[in-house]
Amino acid sequence: MPGDAPVTNRLDAARIEALIDKRFPQIHSGGRTLVIEETGERSARVRLRHHERHMRPGGTVAGTAMFTLADFAVYVAIIATLGEVGLSAVTTNLNINFLAKPEPRDMIADVRLIRLGRRLAVAEVEMRSEGMSDLVAHAIATYALPTRDRQSQRAC
Amino acid sequence: MPGDAPVTNRLDAARIEALIDKRFPQIHSGGRTLVIEETGERSARVRLRHHERHMRPGGTVAGTAMFTLADFAVYVAIIATLGEVGLSAVTTNLNINFLAKPEPRDMIADVRLIRLGRRLAVAEVEMRSEGMSDLVAHAIATYALPTRDRQSQRAC
Amino acid sequence: MPGDAPVTNRLDAARIEALIDKRFPQIHSGGRTLVIEETGERSARVRLRHHERHMRPGGTVAGTAMFTLADFAVYVAIIATLGEVGLSAVTTNLNINFLAKPEPRDMIADVRLIRLGRRLAVAEVEMRSEGMSDLVAHAIATYALPTRDRQSQRAC
Amino acid sequence: MPGDAPVTNRLDAARIEALIDKRFPQIHSGGRTLVIEETGERSARVRLRHHERHMRPGGTVAGTAMFTLADFAVYVAIIATLGEVGLSAVTTNLNINFLAKPEPRDMIADVRLIRLGRRLAVAEVEMRSEGMSDLVAHAIATYALPTRDRQSQRAC
Repeated sequence: MPGDAPVTNRLDAARIEALIDKRFPQIHSGGRTLVIEETGERSARVRLRHHERHMRPGGTVAGTAMFTLADFAVYVAIIATLGEVGLSAVTTNLNINFLAKPEPRDMIADVRLIRLGRRLAVAEVEMRSEGMSDLVAHAIATYALPTRDRQSQRAC
Repeated sequence: MPGDAPVTNRLDAARIEALIDKRFPQIHSGGRTLVIEETGERSARVRLRHHERHMRPGGTVAGTAMFTLADFAVYVAIIATLGEVGLSAVTTNLNINFLAKPEPRDMIADVRLIRLGRRLAVAEVEMRSEGMSDLVAHAIATYALPTRDRQSQRAC
Repeated sequence: MPGDAPVTNRLDAARIEALIDKRFPQIHSGGRTLVIEETGERSARVRLRHHERHMRPGGTVAGTAMFTLADFAVYVAIIATLGEVGLSAVTTNLNINFLAKPEPRDMIADVRLIRLGRRLAVAEVEMRSEGMSDLVAHAIATYALPTRDRQSQRAC
Repeated sequence: MPGDAPVTNRLDAARIEALIDKRFPQIHSGGRTLVIEETGERSARVRLRHHERHMRPGGTVAGTAMFTLADFAVYVAIIATLGEVGLSAVTTNLNINFLAKPEPRDMIADVRLIRLGRRLAVAEVEMRSEGMSDLVAHAIATYALPTRDRQSQRAC
């Protein structure tokens, strides 16, 4: 199993999905639309499936759906990198810019951790309508990481 | 009608709620939890009703629910101040800080427009668990305002 | 001496100014323009003196000068609240909105700590041209606080 | 000269430097430390020369110097892309994350415009100590662009 490799505690997409499903089943209330596509060292790709409940008049995607996509994708990248302990990471800040009107189709988020400190992780998220090169939204998120002495509490 | 007062095009809470319901019925999918409590010149107070679907393990409120509350509350303050034309305003940026674990109860957002320009509005949002004085979250949002020549399109 | 009161390690403006002068003399290179006006529990007021080097064409104040004012004012509020240990706090994020053209005069920054955790402090800064009520800029800053085990290193 | 090509109003580094020097000579007060290295379509690279006045105790670079670098580099990318009219663009928001302690040497900022609308430009800035691959800081900036009818005023 990938997550058991000797030099890393990285987890693969299926394992992360299972862990999150167990911990946060509410994320998928209304129907599963967030799908982990790929994970890597300090990175992840997550898909937001096109769904009626994310749409707004004029055929656009709700800002809330993009916030949720960005926040979830960063969480996935942290767990992919730190392993199961990353499940206790919590968002402390998220700054999102809405850049262009999304297409009425799936949206793809690409995450890159630009800082992975002892206590904080900072990530950048690029969001695009599937198959397009231009960004529709961009986010920077900070997560507080669990510390050894208080992994189950809010971390900072 | 409140919005027709001679020196202002301000609308009251009930009128704004009706306008938004008509334009964005999807906002309330899953059950109505966003309630406009008060509006004023460049300000608004909005309640997020405690609801199962906003909860996360440990009795906390989902970050996504707080993002939605902040974004919606700023939108209400803009419509309250500009009148019906404000319905075409769109979020361009939202920066949210999660400050403390919310209580498992209603949350109140207080919005203040700190800039109302010709093209952009900037607002500050303070979010508290009902009856508490400490902030649980804080947001700054920028909206692009509709311009006379293109009020029905994306504004910038 | 105010800073020695039994139930607090708060320091007064003169004491903080002396501590910062000793630690960061470079802040005042080019001439002293940052002046601590008041400090309180989780708050501070700092003045940026009008100076040729902060000006830009059209009689406006440089964005860089406002960033420096905001960052410095938050630092002062942290030291005012935590005492001398606060000198080791470091900025991790600063988000600034420029709202209106400043007047060519002194600028006043009012800081309020909206979160003071074990590891992070979050502060809000309102900046106004002296004697005016409208904001010219607004900032939210996060500082990493020194921890007991590594107070002299970068904190996160 | 690159800026005179028929299908673009792009300007090269030397021309942009001359234009900015003429308009904002104060930027270089204390000695010229900001140097335009390259410009491209929607991009720029700017160097901050190592200088005593940017240093802070422990051999680190002042946050203010990094803010100035980020803000200036975005401004350069806008002028490089829009031509001389871009000189009237003004910063409306800048969000900066300090990620790691910089080395006591030159710093390089790489800018990419991720949105270039009719009224707003949004840019991402990566900052690194020269010769290093890790980021020391990251910024997202929004500029209001001059409009045809009021190019010499504050744009929004």
